[in-house]
Amino acid sequence: MEKVRIGIIGLGNMGTGHANYLIKQEVKGAELSAICEPRPDRQQWAKENLGDNVQIFDDLDKFLSSGTIDAVLIATPHYDHPEVAIKAFNNGLHVLCEKPAGVYTKSVRQMNEAAKASGKVFSMMYNQRTNRLYKKLKDLVSSGELGEIRRTNWIITNWYRSQSYYNSGGWRATWAGEGGGVLINQDPHQLDLWQWTIDMMPKRVRAFCYFGKHRDIEVEDDVTAFVEYENGATGLFVTTTGEAPGTNRFELSGDRGKIVIEDGKLTFWRLRVSEKEFNETFTGGFGQPECWKCEIPVEGKETGHLGITQNFVDAILHGTPLVAPGEEGIKGLMLSNAMLLSTWTDNWVDLPIDEDLFYEHLQNKIANSKVKKDAGYKTLEVKGTH
Amino acid sequence: MEKVRIGIIGLGNMGTGHANYLIKQEVKGAELSAICEPRPDRQQWAKENLGDNVQIFDDLDKFLSSGTIDAVLIATPHYDHPEVAIKAFNNGLHVLCEKPAGVYTKSVRQMNEAAKASGKVFSMMYNQRTNRLYKKLKDLVSSGELGEIRRTNWIITNWYRSQSYYNSGGWRATWAGEGGGVLINQDPHQLDLWQWTIDMMPKRVRAFCYFGKHRDIEVEDDVTAFVEYENGATGLFVTTTGEAPGTNRFELSGDRGKIVIEDGKLTFWRLRVSEKEFNETFTGGFGQPECWKCEIPVEGKETGHLGITQNFVDAILHGTPLVAPGEEGIKGLMLSNAMLLSTWTDNWVDLPIDEDLFYEHLQNKIANSKVKKDAGYKTLEVKGTH
Repeated sequence: MEKVRIGIIGLGNMGTGHANYLIKQEVKGAELSAICEPRPDRQQWAKENLGDNVQIFDDLDKFLSSGTIDAVLIATPHYDHPEVAIKAFNNGLHVLCEKPAGVYTKSVRQMNEAAKASGKVFSMMYNQRTNRLYKKLKDLVSSGELGEIRRTNWIITNWYRSQSYYNSGGWRATWAGEGGGVLINQDPHQLDLWQWTIDMMPKRVRAFCYFGKHRDIEVEDDVTAFVEYENGATGLFVTTTGEAPGTNRFELSGDRGKIVIEDGKLTFWRLRVSEKEFNETFTGGFGQPECWKCEIPVEGKETGHLGITQNFVDAILHGTPLVAPGEEGIKGLMLSNAMLLSTWTDNWVDLPIDEDLFYEHLQNKIANSKVKKDAGYKTLEVKGTH
Repeated sequence: MEKVRIGIIGLGNMGTGHANYLIKQEVKGAELSAICEPRPDRQQWAKENLGDNVQIFDDLDKFLSSGTIDAVLIATPHYDHPEVAIKAFNNGLHVLCEKPAGVYTKSVRQMNEAAKASGKVFSMMYNQRTNRLYKKLKDLVSSGELGEIRRTNWIITNWYRSQSYYNSGGWRATWAGEGGGVLINQDPHQLDLWQWTIDMMPKRVRAFCYFGKHRDIEVEDDVTAFVEYENGATGLFVTTTGEAPGTNRFELSGDRGKIVIEDGKLTFWRLRVSEKEFNETFTGGFGQPECWKCEIPVEGKETGHLGITQNFVDAILHGTPLVAPGEEGIKGLMLSNAMLLSTWTDNWVDLPIDEDLFYEHLQNKIANSKVKKDAGYKTLEVKGTH
């Protein structure tokens, strides 16, 4: 194979963005060869903007079996991701899936099993893994510079969304349409980075989600989650769409000091000797380890969506290791599911979660939904979002 | 009365500090006239450093009924505060009490009742209420500049204490000796300021305390507490003695923006119109209220311990309103008790707490304590602590 022929499924906000850089041939070794999109207005957009070489399908099965594509980029509503991916794997296609991996872990586990059975390349669109701040953080943690992790604390409350935003599409912020609120829609990148940067998943979660607290919606728009890790460390994740200006501050405390990522900067307060060593040898009563405030250079380029798509294509063509293996998509989703489940049961939730119990609760929320909004849809300007 | 004759009870770390400025007559209208202290070495220190005009007692009842004092400053171990204060009120004396108000709310409530019945002046040594950062915060909140409070988040993890510190006194960090750990010993000021600055107590608490997690002690040295307020706001309080360098960052989010106190600075991100008003009128999909980052001048002088003692004396002599009315000491203690109780019951705790249930749990901890440390005591250098 010299060129990977890519088909995009779904020309909504994200799919349109991917089509725009693919049609300009900004991804080496890739060409946009087809679109699967049932909405007439989006099909019309494709005809006008993507040229005659891009075939347009409105039937998923015909699209997948058409022989015109080697790989799919899934940018449908959240719920469809696993089902569409499984069909694609069954048709021998490689899969690059937009975040989140899905809405509930049961279907995502099935997607992961189908991926494994197919032997095809499977990647998640975790473009924030190319963000140099979090890459550097992962470097500092994995190389041992921060020492063993003691505490993580991410305040990610700068997702301001007005009622006007929620009113822009009837599927938005509903259990049936999106399967959740701020956790499933705004936070998938942070829920991925939270565990990817430290290479640790929590062992249990106690969370406090509030539903329609700030807006007239039925899903969660305010969350505080407390977690425990296997090594005894604890963590916090605080998020909302209801505050302005909000905060994006990720603090990690380790045996060798403290790291804070905020305002586009990474700062490392580094202990000269580890806290453990200091504590074992110090005899002076009051006193603490010598600490150096270090401004850490954060170099390289954030390659974003395009970087992930390039990496996916390189993996297909050259066996390049994936930045965001698709099977890892279940981790962030597991955290988000656990936070909701902990709230619904008003109790601790052990990880991995009881996937059937979560599914049951979710179905119950859908069945009891009182939302009867106009299901109309309009494409919002997503520049500046991820 | 022209001069308030003050007697100090307890010449440990804090009592010695108070004696030092009182003997230099740094508090106008006050004179140090007596000491109550049973330890021979501390009596000896008093003789050598306080002069012949300061009477030394080793019996509390004789001291209280001696007629040589108008007011007492209580600087005994925590447990004794309420009992000693009640005796002082019963002897017609004014009371200035070191923090915390006590170890469990049941006894502190009784202390408050005795204070009220006596009609005497009762103040807590909440010297951090004179800190200009928190005074300015209280000003911004009470004047409505921040709008209705949505979220509070205090990370106060810069209380590093080594094992050497805990080994310096056998009473330290034991249920019988101090009645708790970081909450009762290091955090009383923050637990006071957390609710004093916003004039709101939580209505319920869900907390996660860890006991002897970082050090060989039996009490809590790591705490994460989540709270809900009556108006729907939520809050977090995170504290430990086990991390270096730790963090002291108090963030508040309100209807008119966000305030952060950190590194001795107060910053106000002020919304041009309130979030509520913006949300009600905005129709543009994505978008958020215009926000101004304001550097807030923080003027005036932090008068510290001496300022609180002066205020106490002024209240006695001139009826000056108290900065820290003694009855308010129960608030911070209620929070600390609730955090422990929530952990022990692994459940929510409603406020006001069940004071008998807390007392029962505490007695149980004392009865089952395995700590048999040398009860020896040495005075540590407390410069730089509060």
